[in-house]
Amino acid sequence: MLILGIDPGTAITGYGLVKADGNRLTPLEYGALRTRARDDTATRLSNLHGDLCSLLKETQPDVVAVEQLFFNTNVTTALAVGQARGVILLAAAQAGIHIVEYTPLQVKQTVTGNGRATKEQVGFMVKALLGLKAIPRPDDVSDALAIAICHAHMDSTLKKLAQAAKGR
Amino acid sequence: MLILGIDPGTAITGYGLVKADGNRLTPLEYGALRTRARDDTATRLSNLHGDLCSLLKETQPDVVAVEQLFFNTNVTTALAVGQARGVILLAAAQAGIHIVEYTPLQVKQTVTGNGRATKEQVGFMVKALLGLKAIPRPDDVSDALAIAICHAHMDSTLKKLAQAAKGR
Repeated sequence: MLILGIDPGTAITGYGLVKADGNRLTPLEYGALRTRARDDTATRLSNLHGDLCSLLKETQPDVVAVEQLFFNTNVTTALAVGQARGVILLAAAQAGIHIVEYTPLQVKQTVTGNGRATKEQVGFMVKALLGLKAIPRPDDVSDALAIAICHAHMDSTLKKLAQAAKGR
Repeated sequence: MLILGIDPGTAITGYGLVKADGNRLTPLEYGALRTRARDDTATRLSNLHGDLCSLLKETQPDVVAVEQLFFNTNVTTALAVGQARGVILLAAAQAGIHIVEYTPLQVKQTVTGNGRATKEQVGFMVKALLGLKAIPRPDDVSDALAIAICHAHMDSTLKKLAQAAKGR
């Protein structure tokens, strides 16, 4: 299964493509989509949408995993993140790709075992779990990979539960 | 000048097309784009985007006017409104239509003379200024028309100021 994790933002949107084969996770591609601060919001959203459509077409993920909500933030940030998130969900829906959403708590809990882990701890575990030489930077890229890892774990756990239920 | 005012929301997005000819304002078309609560967010955003693209193509406005920020709200609402707003700004940018933004305070101040006017007062003035028989419902439609009226006034005032400066 190919999972594309996405951490939405107007300035920087992190993405990470992870191949999940049972418990084996392989990072295939990761990085950041950036928009220019000198452009107006609509242009930045339009560029983000275009970049994402290209990325989805090129990588053909089975599922797109996005963070669900940001309670620990202010209204201005929520509105800005919401705008980027809307464009990302739209691009995935237009490409007909299944979307899953996880809260930051679920992502941190799954990846580090601690729902209140710091960005640094998440980055450290992403590096370890994917066998990378360094923590991917900026944080948005690590976070995107963490979301993809979270979905891989959740999906694998659900499948095991389903098999166990069948075997009874 | 054809102005399309838009009041963004995931469930209901109000729109109002107003023709501004100097101080003369004519309402050409107004209503609400609705999405189904039973659909997932990505599908709703995708439907909203499709409806908006059709509306922009059909009405060919010179400018799209959108409300800028919602300070008096909570983070969950801001995120949801942000998602709808992102899709709307994207549709306008993709259609190459100029976008202007006004705060709720500017809209209320311009339309009613009172920056703290109620929804009912805004609706009443929209009805009076556009010569309508009734206040357009739901509120989202009145609000969208109010945003269009706000831009018409702002634009007309700016032009007068420019002429006055020239005449000196």
